Amino acid sequence: MTDDLRYPIGPFKVEGRLTDEQILQAINEIAEAPARLRAAVDGLSPEQLDTPYRPGGWTVRQVVHHLPDSHLNSYIRLKLALTEDQPIIKPYDENEWSNLADARTAPPEISLDLFESLHRRFVMVLRSLEPRDRDRTFVHPEIGVVSLEKNIALYAWHGRHHVAHITSLAERLGWR
Amino acid sequence: MTDDLRYPIGPFKVEGRLTDEQILQAINEIAEAPARLRAAVDGLSPEQLDTPYRPGGWTVRQVVHHLPDSHLNSYIRLKLALTEDQPIIKPYDENEWSNLADARTAPPEISLDLFESLHRRFVMVLRSLEPRDRDRTFVHPEIGVVSLEKNIALYAWHGRHHVAHITSLAERLGWR
Amino acid sequence: MTDDLRYPIGPFKVEGRLTDEQILQAINEIAEAPARLRAAVDGLSPEQLDTPYRPGGWTVRQVVHHLPDSHLNSYIRLKLALTEDQPIIKPYDENEWSNLADARTAPPEISLDLFESLHRRFVMVLRSLEPRDRDRTFVHPEIGVVSLEKNIALYAWHGRHHVAHITSLAERLGWR
Amino acid sequence: MTDDLRYPIGPFKVEGRLTDEQILQAINEIAEAPARLRAAVDGLSPEQLDTPYRPGGWTVRQVVHHLPDSHLNSYIRLKLALTEDQPIIKPYDENEWSNLADARTAPPEISLDLFESLHRRFVMVLRSLEPRDRDRTFVHPEIGVVSLEKNIALYAWHGRHHVAHITSLAERLGWR
Repeated sequence: MTDDLRYPIGPFKVEGRLTDEQILQAINEIAEAPARLRAAVDGLSPEQLDTPYRPGGWTVRQVVHHLPDSHLNSYIRLKLALTEDQPIIKPYDENEWSNLADARTAPPEISLDLFESLHRRFVMVLRSLEPRDRDRTFVHPEIGVVSLEKNIALYAWHGRHHVAHITSLAERLGWR
Repeated sequence: MTDDLRYPIGPFKVEGRLTDEQILQAINEIAEAPARLRAAVDGLSPEQLDTPYRPGGWTVRQVVHHLPDSHLNSYIRLKLALTEDQPIIKPYDENEWSNLADARTAPPEISLDLFESLHRRFVMVLRSLEPRDRDRTFVHPEIGVVSLEKNIALYAWHGRHHVAHITSLAERLGWR
Repeated sequence: MTDDLRYPIGPFKVEGRLTDEQILQAINEIAEAPARLRAAVDGLSPEQLDTPYRPGGWTVRQVVHHLPDSHLNSYIRLKLALTEDQPIIKPYDENEWSNLADARTAPPEISLDLFESLHRRFVMVLRSLEPRDRDRTFVHPEIGVVSLEKNIALYAWHGRHHVAHITSLAERLGWR
Repeated sequence: MTDDLRYPIGPFKVEGRLTDEQILQAINEIAEAPARLRAAVDGLSPEQLDTPYRPGGWTVRQVVHHLPDSHLNSYIRLKLALTEDQPIIKPYDENEWSNLADARTAPPEISLDLFESLHRRFVMVLRSLEPRDRDRTFVHPEIGVVSLEKNIALYAWHGRHHVAHITSLAERLGWR
């Protein structure tokens, strides 16, 4: 049950290569993520924003602030992979970041705007990629070699995953 | 002369510790940078945007797209320093990033919006720092240990530095 | 762990001004660096010379050839700072230099000799500096203003840093 | 007459492309320069070392110390041109460098050794160049675009030029 709450759309899974169509769809999902996040938190009260999406989990507010933080890192890894030969990227501690004062207390609008403007630039770069760029890679010290193709699929999933944390909570608690 | 064009407000320089007032002023300069950038490029034509700010230098457009790219990296270094013990950060190749398609051709609005929404979050974090946080550090592989205090001063300078590239070009060429 | 291997003597760090004694010690460390490097590689086989000092890092051979390349640049920055008013120096791409044929394949003796004869001249200049010369500066385009005082401390650290890459590898692998 | 003393082997002149044979010869001249310099000053007294090679010109000692300083800069320009796309190099003020304490007073052995070990590395790189590398270029802010081919010819001339300052002086004054 905890696992269900944790993975409302299931865990990330990709096997083998993606088709051109799957890549296009993943980029479209990234493009739509900011509007979906905005809709998910629209009209929520401060108390609702401070409700954990699952027992022991982040609050809705923390989820909102996590998304641009995470995708900023992803955008930077994309650019590093495009400009260096298999760079080793710097991971970050998402739990520690989510416990900083801004992530616990800031109004959601700040991150909704940042997520939206970041994704416009992010999607522009993704749409400008040549097919061969999808095979460019970076190294994550704990995960190993990651291709841009796989990373695009990962962040399409990641946006939908966290938005579903909020929408499934709202449904369970009868907020909608 | 080339050197003057490169450093319209002089190179970055900080000696010893900053006073509380100097820190506050630096954070205010970071807060104002997006509006100053927007004003500097307001009404420029595509031809003007594609003019190098000095012979052999980046175009105005590349300068505009460089600023959020650079300050995204700086925001991430700030968060890393706040959540890890003297983390080693990942540098990026600013010239290679500026030669990617998006930096050479994208409309400036994309980066003006991103710079603005990023700085709202960035400044919120900076204003939430405790005095002792200023002594937190990260390691830049080529530069060594950098304190947050010094880094705040650096990015206050960095925003003014690049805006001055644009405003001094506009003045030299009689655009204003 | 990777980080430990990268910084066997810790990252470079200097705060505030150096005392006369600290400056003298730093110059002595620069003077001793060539002998320490020679001792560190003495008797190593070609296979050992071509072993990376850490996974994904430079080989011992590349470290040996990097040192005179790096300190040649440092010597030139020193002379530029002594003969011009805050000159803007030209950085170099140490990774690209280390991937050139000579850095990957040349016998270490060539660089051991060059490092030794360069440091004799370098140290002679450093010992001839007047106290006020330590405040002379150059500008590194990405780092900002750097004083000679700070730069002396940096290159004392830099020589010990790279020699420790070799000696710590030799210890880990039981070569000594 | 002054001009004759200044240019004992004539000014540098190269027109059009060099043949493979001319390139090989130029590299050989660079390889032989340290031995020729050592022979030229062998056995000179301190008084002779402090004699200007022409009225108002550098002393023999300054000429000796100038050669490694100049060729260190040339080696760095070579590496920059091999690792960057038409880099803008940093010129240096050879007269100011020659007026520093080390250039006016240091024993010649320091620079004879440095010149010799530097040229071993320099010549190794020159001999490893692919034919197409000769067309790589750097930009000298005052001179413009310089190809490696032309630069090889220039430094072959430059070594012979300064050695001839010393040998022609020794001949005029009957030291040999």
